[in-house]
Amino acid sequence: MSDLPLPPGSTLGVLGGGQLGRMISQAASRLGFDVVILDPEADSPAGRVSAAQIVAGYDDPDALTRLGRLCDVVTFEFENVPAASIERLAEAGALVAPGPTALRVAQDRVDEKTFLNAVGATTVDFAVVDTLSDLDEAVAVIGLPALLKTRREGYDGKGQVWIRDAAETAAAFEAISGRPAILEAAAAFTRELSVIAARDRDGAVAVYPLGENRHANGVLKITLAPAEVSAAGQARAHEIAEAILDGLDYVGVLGVELFELADGTLLVNEIAPRVHNTGHWTQDGCVCDQFEQHVRAVVGWPLGPTAAHARVEMTNLLGDEVEAWRDLASDPAVRLHLYGKAEARPGRKMAHVNRVLGSA
Amino acid sequence: MSDLPLPPGSTLGVLGGGQLGRMISQAASRLGFDVVILDPEADSPAGRVSAAQIVAGYDDPDALTRLGRLCDVVTFEFENVPAASIERLAEAGALVAPGPTALRVAQDRVDEKTFLNAVGATTVDFAVVDTLSDLDEAVAVIGLPALLKTRREGYDGKGQVWIRDAAETAAAFEAISGRPAILEAAAAFTRELSVIAARDRDGAVAVYPLGENRHANGVLKITLAPAEVSAAGQARAHEIAEAILDGLDYVGVLGVELFELADGTLLVNEIAPRVHNTGHWTQDGCVCDQFEQHVRAVVGWPLGPTAAHARVEMTNLLGDEVEAWRDLASDPAVRLHLYGKAEARPGRKMAHVNRVLGSA
Repeated sequence: MSDLPLPPGSTLGVLGGGQLGRMISQAASRLGFDVVILDPEADSPAGRVSAAQIVAGYDDPDALTRLGRLCDVVTFEFENVPAASIERLAEAGALVAPGPTALRVAQDRVDEKTFLNAVGATTVDFAVVDTLSDLDEAVAVIGLPALLKTRREGYDGKGQVWIRDAAETAAAFEAISGRPAILEAAAAFTRELSVIAARDRDGAVAVYPLGENRHANGVLKITLAPAEVSAAGQARAHEIAEAILDGLDYVGVLGVELFELADGTLLVNEIAPRVHNTGHWTQDGCVCDQFEQHVRAVVGWPLGPTAAHARVEMTNLLGDEVEAWRDLASDPAVRLHLYGKAEARPGRKMAHVNRVLGSA
Repeated sequence: MSDLPLPPGSTLGVLGGGQLGRMISQAASRLGFDVVILDPEADSPAGRVSAAQIVAGYDDPDALTRLGRLCDVVTFEFENVPAASIERLAEAGALVAPGPTALRVAQDRVDEKTFLNAVGATTVDFAVVDTLSDLDEAVAVIGLPALLKTRREGYDGKGQVWIRDAAETAAAFEAISGRPAILEAAAAFTRELSVIAARDRDGAVAVYPLGENRHANGVLKITLAPAEVSAAGQARAHEIAEAILDGLDYVGVLGVELFELADGTLLVNEIAPRVHNTGHWTQDGCVCDQFEQHVRAVVGWPLGPTAAHARVEMTNLLGDEVEAWRDLASDPAVRLHLYGKAEARPGRKMAHVNRVLGSA
């Protein structure tokens, strides 16, 4: 194990070579770290901007041992990392951050909501669904409409189905292939907000201003930040983020998706134990963006500042929307962030743009 | 040859794998380009953040052919690129920018000053020195003190010697090994300023606000930007930069070092046909920094905006000064840029920091 803080010249490993890994790598190299990516796809977006890439599955024991030996610290760009992989990396001598508790909690929607409520971060009502009769019972308790989700996996609207009528339960249960599930009450929210926060190895917490998010077809389209939120709302979001980070003994950046109700109440929708799409605005709104912040936390550096110096509108470019680069390149208020993905499949996150709206 | 503008996914080649190549690469990858570095040193700072590195000399014909075939466009991080290398790259099918004229002019101090004066960018008086008797004659005409420099090569104060007394000419000529030289009059300047400017493939020019520079031992230590300069001074610097860029039919970013005299007159000290150390402040002071600007120009994109949103103090960290990262990491006004160089040799440029002083 290496001594903390890790000096520049140390090596950071990243599980996952997509755009999040790419932007983590770019931030790490700005701080003088070398980066090694593990991803099954050769020439991944992150691998192409890093010192090296190991091309292998996330559960390949030899690859994990190699990564762990090459790296002083290893992090990840997605939450579905097998627990056994984390153990293997630690055995090979690498620090891993965030730790296994955060992954375990974030990988199971029931564990996640149970944890959240336990630390005072209120969620919608929910019930565990293992069988169709569980589902019928849950519908009776929670009411309709309600959202049936698989307990594990699924993101960007995948692996979930709305139930609007009690007659739909069997079809819904079949739609998720009868997998272990959770039924969630519908939140009567007026806005979707999110907060990006970080915790360092000494337990210090830093919280960015909230973002306001707009989704389309279950996928994030726009984040406006800093969101117009009352001081009380910002303080409550800070409190929620801190309770979550402390409760997980977390190291790194974490995204918290929130529902804002008409009376200002904030419910936690879900957490992501990683850098988060709704935090991309920080690249052009803050001195220290979420990617550098994450690197700072995992290498044992103090956290950077989180104040916004600009108001930013972040827009995801999906699929062939990336062709808009031709026009966007001429727009002086826009900063382009392209991910180096060759194939613009429909719905694939290809790039985002940060439009600087003015000083914060 | 590829059609312009080059789309994301195209490949940019860079001759030179130091910190300037590294930051060009990082900017290019943000725009979705792949980058290939050519540098004789394996695992160069730029190579470690790029898709690939060819390890070979800058005059290696096979390496240049390979680079030219891999890349849609090739640029460089230093001005002493052999003209034959540029030809080889073009033969292999790559666009090269900036072009050979800029390199030829910038590689010879006599050609440079002759060109500058021809386009109305005034310099100090100078004389060509090929022999000791040339030098004695030049001293008689130009007066003392005067600065004797080799016509070619030399940077950061290397390859130059001050002459303060007519009795010193022989020693001075010997100090530069009797190489072809230039004698330059001393400029009675009150400040050293610089201007970073860019020209795109359609001839459009964009100019950043001026920086004020402080050197120590012939090496840049600090740039403060935007410098406090009158509107007339800024306009004159803009005019000088535009005359130089147009005169060279230039494509890319160019740095112009200026002497400001007591009456506000601006003399051109030298030009660098590349991104420039005195432009590093733009990374944290502008939406589009000099590295992205350079990439935009060479790939045929429109230039980005050059207005400053923040006042920045850029400081170079040389040799073991880089150890200051431990303290600087805790300073919320500082953004660190480390170059990933393993060995902190005395005087070696290891990193720079941008201190954000406030809104511009």
